[in-house]
Amino acid sequence: MTQRIWNFSAGPAVLPESVLEEARDNLLSLGSTGIGILEHSHRGKAFVAVYEETEALVRKVGGVPDNYRVLFLQGGASTQFFQIPMNFLSQDRTADYLVTGSWSEKAEEEARRFGQTYISCSSSDRNYSYIPATCTFSPNPAYAHYTSNNTIFGTQWPGLPPVPKEIDLICDASSDIFSRPIDVARHAMIYAGAQKNLGPSGVTLVIIRDDLIEKGPKNIPTMLQYRTHAKNDSMYNTPPTFAIYLVGLVLKWIERDGGLSGIAERNQRKAAKLYSFLDQSKLFKPTADANSRSLMNVTFVTGNADLDAKVCSAASKAGFDGLKGHRSVGGMRASIYNAFPEAGVDALVEFLKNFEAANPSA
Amino acid sequence: MTQRIWNFSAGPAVLPESVLEEARDNLLSLGSTGIGILEHSHRGKAFVAVYEETEALVRKVGGVPDNYRVLFLQGGASTQFFQIPMNFLSQDRTADYLVTGSWSEKAEEEARRFGQTYISCSSSDRNYSYIPATCTFSPNPAYAHYTSNNTIFGTQWPGLPPVPKEIDLICDASSDIFSRPIDVARHAMIYAGAQKNLGPSGVTLVIIRDDLIEKGPKNIPTMLQYRTHAKNDSMYNTPPTFAIYLVGLVLKWIERDGGLSGIAERNQRKAAKLYSFLDQSKLFKPTADANSRSLMNVTFVTGNADLDAKVCSAASKAGFDGLKGHRSVGGMRASIYNAFPEAGVDALVEFLKNFEAANPSA
Repeated sequence: MTQRIWNFSAGPAVLPESVLEEARDNLLSLGSTGIGILEHSHRGKAFVAVYEETEALVRKVGGVPDNYRVLFLQGGASTQFFQIPMNFLSQDRTADYLVTGSWSEKAEEEARRFGQTYISCSSSDRNYSYIPATCTFSPNPAYAHYTSNNTIFGTQWPGLPPVPKEIDLICDASSDIFSRPIDVARHAMIYAGAQKNLGPSGVTLVIIRDDLIEKGPKNIPTMLQYRTHAKNDSMYNTPPTFAIYLVGLVLKWIERDGGLSGIAERNQRKAAKLYSFLDQSKLFKPTADANSRSLMNVTFVTGNADLDAKVCSAASKAGFDGLKGHRSVGGMRASIYNAFPEAGVDALVEFLKNFEAANPSA
Repeated sequence: MTQRIWNFSAGPAVLPESVLEEARDNLLSLGSTGIGILEHSHRGKAFVAVYEETEALVRKVGGVPDNYRVLFLQGGASTQFFQIPMNFLSQDRTADYLVTGSWSEKAEEEARRFGQTYISCSSSDRNYSYIPATCTFSPNPAYAHYTSNNTIFGTQWPGLPPVPKEIDLICDASSDIFSRPIDVARHAMIYAGAQKNLGPSGVTLVIIRDDLIEKGPKNIPTMLQYRTHAKNDSMYNTPPTFAIYLVGLVLKWIERDGGLSGIAERNQRKAAKLYSFLDQSKLFKPTADANSRSLMNVTFVTGNADLDAKVCSAASKAGFDGLKGHRSVGGMRASIYNAFPEAGVDALVEFLKNFEAANPSA
């Protein structure tokens, strides 16, 4: 088999090798069923067991209280951007958005179609290189929405944002879901596209408090009502069965390796190795403020676009893939989600050290 | 490896073994990239190549004219049920629905949220056991919508429905897409969830004529505007990469085996074997009218619910999975989509023959 390389992709991203191996071994027959995982009816015993196990794992690993529903939807976080205000915002109300990057911006823009929005805080003044310290809120918001990690700008809320407890808090956790313990009960809803920390692209995890489900209007399309999916255990229509199966495998892998506290410790250690190197480097400089740094996406530059390009090109030749930064920040981005191995971080630090040594005049 | 069994599931359904084997071999590394197919960024070279090849295959295999766009969306046919009227129907217009089963019913119900609907024809009077011979239309419909194959009731439009050429014709081809040649140019739009004839669940193929794309309003959510996906080659947000990859593999398999005319011939032959047996049987009776029979889903009963249950149970023990009919029809349903092997049809006929011989008094 071809040697696997270090994949720093921002998503779809690297998955645990053991998960891929298990999926591979079940592609032509799920266990002893004689039918591959892709081919099982979503209504059949074998897949229903997979579904129930995956849902139970989300609850167990994530510490999801009983008064929350776990849904597996389609359409990515981009669909949640409009589905949330379509269900919870009306023309006579306001929704508050904590804007810390492109994805929060998009979420806020979609909400404007359904009612008033209020910008609780924004770090757009310095190209989203930091997480704001303070927020303000509209008088009686339908909800407050934040993006826990900002893939493009390499920032992350270090903990819960300063939102009063009486406001329903909604989190887009697409790029750091289950990378550390999360206080589900403090949220009205948490959602995440799976393709960074949970599995492949094509499924969106939604954790939603019971009382919200019935708040949505009934005159919107059936597929866009959360109650439809809650009532039908995400099987009103055919769900993305393979993606759900893979999320289950990833959750089992997280559970085996110490659950969210175990993974948080490893994620801390991985990011610390990289940031420590960058902080002492004379060539490379992290782009995010120190107290706002993401443990998932480490963004850095040399300060010279040509030299950045040289770094990326040399890295690529050395077997490091996906290090080019997003065009709105430039430079480099090392996405080191849950499944990214610590050995890959060590290898990258070594590579950057050597690059710096070989380019002393840069 | 576990012996594969005969999988008559109505969807997700059996996939060609060679497709599963190829996917399996690329799960830990797509070709020599060192990164598995699930882990490649949708913006990276490797996946963009997969995407472009898959799109080109849809065009080639399906005979899609240049003035149509090929999109890969999420949310299944159930999302198209509302997205179509949301884009093309307004409060002052009418959309015509040819109602031949549960899925057409659901499509029509969702359309009512956006404007008037008109039932062009319906076979609900005899539990959808036939395809109506004639249709009528409203004076100036926004479009006419039909379901080419009815999974639950085992019926299929033998060809194009009798819709005047000046009406934009929209087809839900979820359960018979690419099972026979299709006159794309005669349609304004064709859509299909992939999980029956094209691949796994989690991706919806949409073939849409250029001029329709811009007809939709711009004040609806970005994700629900066809123009968003057309402008971004289905990559406005992260697409279901693995599902698209698998659709490509299935299309290559169809192409290798004679394209749509080759597959149509095999599908004809498979269905004929089963219907011929049922027509001469004293025990089993097909539920659909002879001129309305589906080549994809063969529905039949004994006329005795207890005996039907006995058939299903004996079949299951003999290694035939998924033969139980939908609760709204009862009896048995053999879904024999493109990838269902002819040998499995032969085996089923043999099994039913033996069952009949062993139950002469039934």
